[in-house]
Amino acid sequence: MSVRVGIMGYGNLGRGVESAIAQSSDMTLAAVFTRRDPGSLKIMTEGVPVYAADKAAEFAKDIDVMILCGGSANDLPKQSPALAKYFNVVDSFDTHAKIPEHFANVDKAAKEGGKAAVISVGWDPGLFSLMRMYGLAALPEGNDYTFWGKGVSQGHSDAVRRVEGVQDARQYTIPVESALERVRKGENPELTTREKHTRECFVVAKEGADKAAIEQTIKTMPNYFADYDTTVHFISQEELDRDHKGIPHGGFVIRSGKTGEGSSHVMEFSLKLESNPAFTSSVLVAFARAAYRLGSEGISGCKTILDIPPAYLCNMSGEELRKNLL
Amino acid sequence: MSVRVGIMGYGNLGRGVESAIAQSSDMTLAAVFTRRDPGSLKIMTEGVPVYAADKAAEFAKDIDVMILCGGSANDLPKQSPALAKYFNVVDSFDTHAKIPEHFANVDKAAKEGGKAAVISVGWDPGLFSLMRMYGLAALPEGNDYTFWGKGVSQGHSDAVRRVEGVQDARQYTIPVESALERVRKGENPELTTREKHTRECFVVAKEGADKAAIEQTIKTMPNYFADYDTTVHFISQEELDRDHKGIPHGGFVIRSGKTGEGSSHVMEFSLKLESNPAFTSSVLVAFARAAYRLGSEGISGCKTILDIPPAYLCNMSGEELRKNLL
Repeated sequence: MSVRVGIMGYGNLGRGVESAIAQSSDMTLAAVFTRRDPGSLKIMTEGVPVYAADKAAEFAKDIDVMILCGGSANDLPKQSPALAKYFNVVDSFDTHAKIPEHFANVDKAAKEGGKAAVISVGWDPGLFSLMRMYGLAALPEGNDYTFWGKGVSQGHSDAVRRVEGVQDARQYTIPVESALERVRKGENPELTTREKHTRECFVVAKEGADKAAIEQTIKTMPNYFADYDTTVHFISQEELDRDHKGIPHGGFVIRSGKTGEGSSHVMEFSLKLESNPAFTSSVLVAFARAAYRLGSEGISGCKTILDIPPAYLCNMSGEELRKNLL
Repeated sequence: MSVRVGIMGYGNLGRGVESAIAQSSDMTLAAVFTRRDPGSLKIMTEGVPVYAADKAAEFAKDIDVMILCGGSANDLPKQSPALAKYFNVVDSFDTHAKIPEHFANVDKAAKEGGKAAVISVGWDPGLFSLMRMYGLAALPEGNDYTFWGKGVSQGHSDAVRRVEGVQDARQYTIPVESALERVRKGENPELTTREKHTRECFVVAKEGADKAAIEQTIKTMPNYFADYDTTVHFISQEELDRDHKGIPHGGFVIRSGKTGEGSSHVMEFSLKLESNPAFTSSVLVAFARAAYRLGSEGISGCKTILDIPPAYLCNMSGEELRKNLL
């Protein structure tokens, strides 16, 4: 039997989930839900219906797990609890400070509905959280380091676009190689914000704009850039569209610590992603498999990536997993 | 309440487990069991009793989880099933081909005793297995690569020591940097044994031994060296003792794959370990915590690292974990 998956929201993430389901022989896309006019939405998979988001509950019996592809700021805080009453759900909620509140809301709803929910799935929070967990478990005395990049930060790109005189922009977060090397050597350095990452901006200025003023405004912007060494490059819109269209990202989680008898060890996990939303979508689909399985076992309530047995992510028997992966 | 841990076998691994328990505020070393004369064994932790291995079952009520620190060839195939009847147990069984048989034996015993067992814990099998699992889950279409080293292979060192004319030896397994780079670039190469690893031997020859013959015998030894580019260095016993006393190891697990819409991604996990047994011991203790917790929940039978929810490895509440690690 194939797991029937629903997609709520059809942006970058929703389309990525659709592609990832096509790679999963044990899953079938059952329906896409949208807040746009369902009749106007053309999806990639043939023969799959598109419904209005507010009608989702009517399809509770037709969908084994719903993957929520909305944003953390406005969509998921409402959608995840609302839908967890009717469906096993997975979301990628990533506003760290609000996770406890979101967890509580989803947990309550999922328990009411007797469904399993997995929140904050992706790579950070997500796989990076797992690596921090395994690092702490294996080396309880040590230090954690997370570096991000090289990759596009949408939030920082948006901040640059809001600067007066800027027509378009793309911002890259870049880990400082020398800091990474110190961490890898087990030096356990204390690193300031500036020492960990640099920021590089590719900016298209409006005609006649004061480039020096733009550069100064960007570099001194509090929270976003003031604490970093920032480089600003002015380029044409054609160059931006040609060379900076992708949404690559990635990063490093490093645990450096000592075992009780005094020897030093370094654990490192890294991701190099050509497309941040495509990879996040693929991770969401793996955890949707787990949410469905938990739900089938009668487990209800909210879980995070830290609670999921790894074997639940793959469509293989315990025997196959032990033979092929152990 | 502190988890009362027993150690079965007091070699490198047993001593490592003892040190790791000392780093764990939620665990107490309750007893060490040995096949040697208990009266002759001096352990590091003061006030902890040493008992004869064959009396272990008498202490079933005093120990919450037993960590088995014997070898995979001769000890664990018997010890793990025998002790899983009485204790929650963890072992580091690493003979890949025999894992299905070992799993079945331990599962039967643990179910009879109503205990939880976790087998094949360490870093490979162990953390590396986990990384292969997460890699497959996140990138179902892709390739897996595991490289080992730079590190000491005990089996290969022993093989060199058995060569006529050899007094002592130490063998290092070294990943080929150019192969690693090709994998990291997402080239998905097909690599032969020779292309993945080289082997480096430091050999102390007996007085008057034929060094050319030794070198030739090593380099052409089937299974161990014939399929590799092997370098042999002759050094003195003093140099071997001074420069090659440690047991470092490590390696790399890389998953390279494409998501459905066509973009490429690389996931990489690596370990750099100053002491292989010390790190393995530390991982064993983390999974002992999980075995105890599973047992307390009334779950019985055999599990592997792929079945354990990551959160079970740490002594923190779900709330703390979500706040600090997610």
